[in-house]
Amino acid sequence: MIYFDNASTSYRKPQRIYDAVYNTMINGAGNSGRGANSVSMAAGRILHDCRTELSLLFHCDKPENIVLKSSVTEALNTILLGLLKPGDHVISSVMEHNSVLRPLEKLRKDGIITYDLLPCDDSGEILLDSLSDLENLNTKAIILSHVSNLTGTIQPAARIRERLRNKDIYIIIDAAQSAGYIKVDMESLKVDAIAFTGHKGLLGPQGTGGFIISDRMNQDMRPVFTGGTGSDSLSLDQPLFLPDKFESGTHNIPGIAGLLEGVKFIKEREINRINEEHMFLSEYFLHHLDALDSIALMGKRTPSGRIPNFSLTFKNMDCSEAAFILENRFNIISRSGYHCAPLAHKALGTGETGSLRISFGHFTTVQDIDQLLVALKYISEVYHGE
Amino acid sequence: MIYFDNASTSYRKPQRIYDAVYNTMINGAGNSGRGANSVSMAAGRILHDCRTELSLLFHCDKPENIVLKSSVTEALNTILLGLLKPGDHVISSVMEHNSVLRPLEKLRKDGIITYDLLPCDDSGEILLDSLSDLENLNTKAIILSHVSNLTGTIQPAARIRERLRNKDIYIIIDAAQSAGYIKVDMESLKVDAIAFTGHKGLLGPQGTGGFIISDRMNQDMRPVFTGGTGSDSLSLDQPLFLPDKFESGTHNIPGIAGLLEGVKFIKEREINRINEEHMFLSEYFLHHLDALDSIALMGKRTPSGRIPNFSLTFKNMDCSEAAFILENRFNIISRSGYHCAPLAHKALGTGETGSLRISFGHFTTVQDIDQLLVALKYISEVYHGE
Repeated sequence: MIYFDNASTSYRKPQRIYDAVYNTMINGAGNSGRGANSVSMAAGRILHDCRTELSLLFHCDKPENIVLKSSVTEALNTILLGLLKPGDHVISSVMEHNSVLRPLEKLRKDGIITYDLLPCDDSGEILLDSLSDLENLNTKAIILSHVSNLTGTIQPAARIRERLRNKDIYIIIDAAQSAGYIKVDMESLKVDAIAFTGHKGLLGPQGTGGFIISDRMNQDMRPVFTGGTGSDSLSLDQPLFLPDKFESGTHNIPGIAGLLEGVKFIKEREINRINEEHMFLSEYFLHHLDALDSIALMGKRTPSGRIPNFSLTFKNMDCSEAAFILENRFNIISRSGYHCAPLAHKALGTGETGSLRISFGHFTTVQDIDQLLVALKYISEVYHGE
Repeated sequence: MIYFDNASTSYRKPQRIYDAVYNTMINGAGNSGRGANSVSMAAGRILHDCRTELSLLFHCDKPENIVLKSSVTEALNTILLGLLKPGDHVISSVMEHNSVLRPLEKLRKDGIITYDLLPCDDSGEILLDSLSDLENLNTKAIILSHVSNLTGTIQPAARIRERLRNKDIYIIIDAAQSAGYIKVDMESLKVDAIAFTGHKGLLGPQGTGGFIISDRMNQDMRPVFTGGTGSDSLSLDQPLFLPDKFESGTHNIPGIAGLLEGVKFIKEREINRINEEHMFLSEYFLHHLDALDSIALMGKRTPSGRIPNFSLTFKNMDCSEAAFILENRFNIISRSGYHCAPLAHKALGTGETGSLRISFGHFTTVQDIDQLLVALKYISEVYHGE
């Protein structure tokens, strides 16, 4: 099996990640902060180490500002529902995932917020030109994906702050697709929060994710879900210090132990080298894809400005049929459909068709891509001609 | 190491649970419902099988009414925040965990709900006599723990419905401590929702949990967190069918595969036999504990009406000191503190001291208890006399 659905979840991951999850379960790890026994403290160490590694990766100088949740979706909801108040206005974009669009739409329908969406160009790049037009006195926050889960386009996140008239507006970045693929730096992006998932580019297991938050934005936020934290147990109020403020209940300790190994792996591999390797592979793939006339690429046709996540459409062939052929004839795993990005499809003209998504992982090789190209050639020429 | 902190998280679990988590990661399991490739469908099967087993365990005839979340805390918050509307009144009890008390207190401070708490007797049993006094025309729901995480007391959950004047009030049960220990039956308890955790009595890994909901209560609820579900991807609105309505984002598939094995294990072992075994061990422990004068037991002094979860206090010795001696001299893991149950401690007179909690698991033996008794005797007589 050749696996090209890494934008959904990375597979396979390095063995040390599987081992970390397994050994944590075997060796026992309890609930951090609940009691002082060695099993509980083992859990505390895993949480501490994971926060530390994540704070180094994302360039955030306070590990306690790393909030660990079960998914990026839970992270984004915790941020949006915890920050936005009646009357607030939000700016987002048409390129967002439903994990951003649906919470915003729900808050709008509930009469709490209004929001506007930035458009994108043909390559799926969000156009910041209209930012100052959309900004109004009630604009509380901007929330944008760092990399499109549909087209792989890297968005101009680092240029948002300078385009704002009110420099104090909170900037929230959805790094679900970028973390582990390209540099995601809290400081150089000049953002207030970054939501991330653990199980894609960071190579952790499913059931992990979280967000990094600035002290400034944290002060304006309240917890959404509350409960046992092991801290201030005698109080009926959720503690308001980080990270407990946003972390109630038992953590997924084995999963977080796996994420810790994933983040360490990324650090050792070096994000710049990963990015270079991906650009090389993207160039290789795009060069050969050009020759296949009946297959269209959505988004950028260059290896730069993107991660190796490609959405394809086929002349006169349904994407799900192409995915079926890829798997059943060539043992290649891809993904067909709308990828939870409804407005991006609409903007890019694939609202009726969806796309076939091919997403490389950290271990994709030239040989894998060669086999994919053989299969796509078959679909394009042989099968398509039948 | 002898582990007596199973009320916090069960350890060790059967090997097959660790293997299921590991093999699911190794073999690959993607995102259920996102695309139709074999990796995604493997995840779908795990979710389907786990819902089916849980629906059999909890006697709920619709597997789709089993909502899988990352913890019982997330489940309880999703229920309370999704159900309660401005003006609603809720009845709960002083015996609740902070995962119930803190969300209720937050909703009250936000001016959304009011709530009243049922008292308990000396054994930690919730007194239902005052239920009809607390009930008013705005009472929307009753939420009670099925078993106290502090004293192990089994609460009279099955008698709630008959005591209500308005029989339509929703009954929500927090089964965090009961599931896997005693029978938790949606039908015979006559309740509308049961929240459960995966990693305690059900023997799954941390990062698993969820709730079962009746169609009746579901119709009155809205999703709190929204996002990608792999269903209705072109819509900006969260789908309103179960379980997608309450499940956004990537599931903890390896964890759920482990939970599936745990639930199967409980089914094979049979809950009644587990309960009988626990009563035998409780009787053994309580009998010998009686001889230790300087140690007081909170809650019921009988093996019936309880699970084998015991809170102890010591004359003139701090609980954390006792826990320290147990671990460092006898290699016995216990838990000292307030166990996130502030009002229960207040009601039972331990608001200043906390307690030392000893909680048996599915593999606790008479030999384990003998060693515990030797250690407690040392604390009670030798050490205490110094």
